Amino acid sequence: MDEQATVPASHQDLMDRPLIANFATVRSDGSVQSNPMWFVWDGSRVRLTHTRTRKKFQNVSREPRVALSIVDPEDSQRYLEIRGEVESIDDDTGAPFYRTLQERYGAGGPIGDADVRVVLVIRPTVILARSFKPGDSRAAIQRSVAASSA
Amino acid sequence: MDEQATVPASHQDLMDRPLIANFATVRSDGSVQSNPMWFVWDGSRVRLTHTRTRKKFQNVSREPRVALSIVDPEDSQRYLEIRGEVESIDDDTGAPFYRTLQERYGAGGPIGDADVRVVLVIRPTVILARSFKPGDSRAAIQRSVAASSA
Repeated sequence: MDEQATVPASHQDLMDRPLIANFATVRSDGSVQSNPMWFVWDGSRVRLTHTRTRKKFQNVSREPRVALSIVDPEDSQRYLEIRGEVESIDDDTGAPFYRTLQERYGAGGPIGDADVRVVLVIRPTVILARSFKPGDSRAAIQRSVAASSA
Repeated sequence: MDEQATVPASHQDLMDRPLIANFATVRSDGSVQSNPMWFVWDGSRVRLTHTRTRKKFQNVSREPRVALSIVDPEDSQRYLEIRGEVESIDDDTGAPFYRTLQERYGAGGPIGDADVRVVLVIRPTVILARSFKPGDSRAAIQRSVAASSA
């Protein structure tokens, strides 16, 4: 299924800028965890860099339904809430994808775990785009739902 | 049980400043959602303002295990990851607690839902404090676990 939720033009910058995505996953005991992560968006999929050796990898291998929130650092009332599914976990041995994220985020340094790197590929199923302007009586929320999830 | 995880001195400012906490909860179908939220920390409990009428209220009423992530806006490699339990849901009719958060966050405006406001009181069970300094070969992670969860 190739359907996904879409990002409204008003919030596109939050996906394009090198911001932090807060990534929520379900743990083996059914509780949740939330981790700040680098990400990149190609217009239809969110990609995160990760390794095969960490807790989150086990989490998403067992429960592919995940969530992300991305907040405008200049206006915390403006943000995206994304729910989606880990569609694939792609190999990143040698860490070429990780390096593109280092570059996107202006980071550097050695990559000690290049041989266990992977890419989490997430298909957004629901995207809520929220904003709240001074003077408005309530927040504006735009909602996009993937056809396959409707 | 009154035990809770603690915040190291190195990251105390992230709890004291009016930053955004990304709040992860489990939905009725077992998937997750992540929502940016205002919060306040009194040294032992995280408090969030919420309403009785929204999805997250149903989520935490059914599954009190939640997670929060709070990132330093000046250094995204420095953050707190918190896991905890909603210990109580306190009444905030008339929204006095909500008003203190409005003040903390420099926000204003009318409160349309004052009659259904509540306070989510969260006992942290695990706190991870992460930092990564330029030149370090890997991130430093401090971990605190509540005695009752150990």
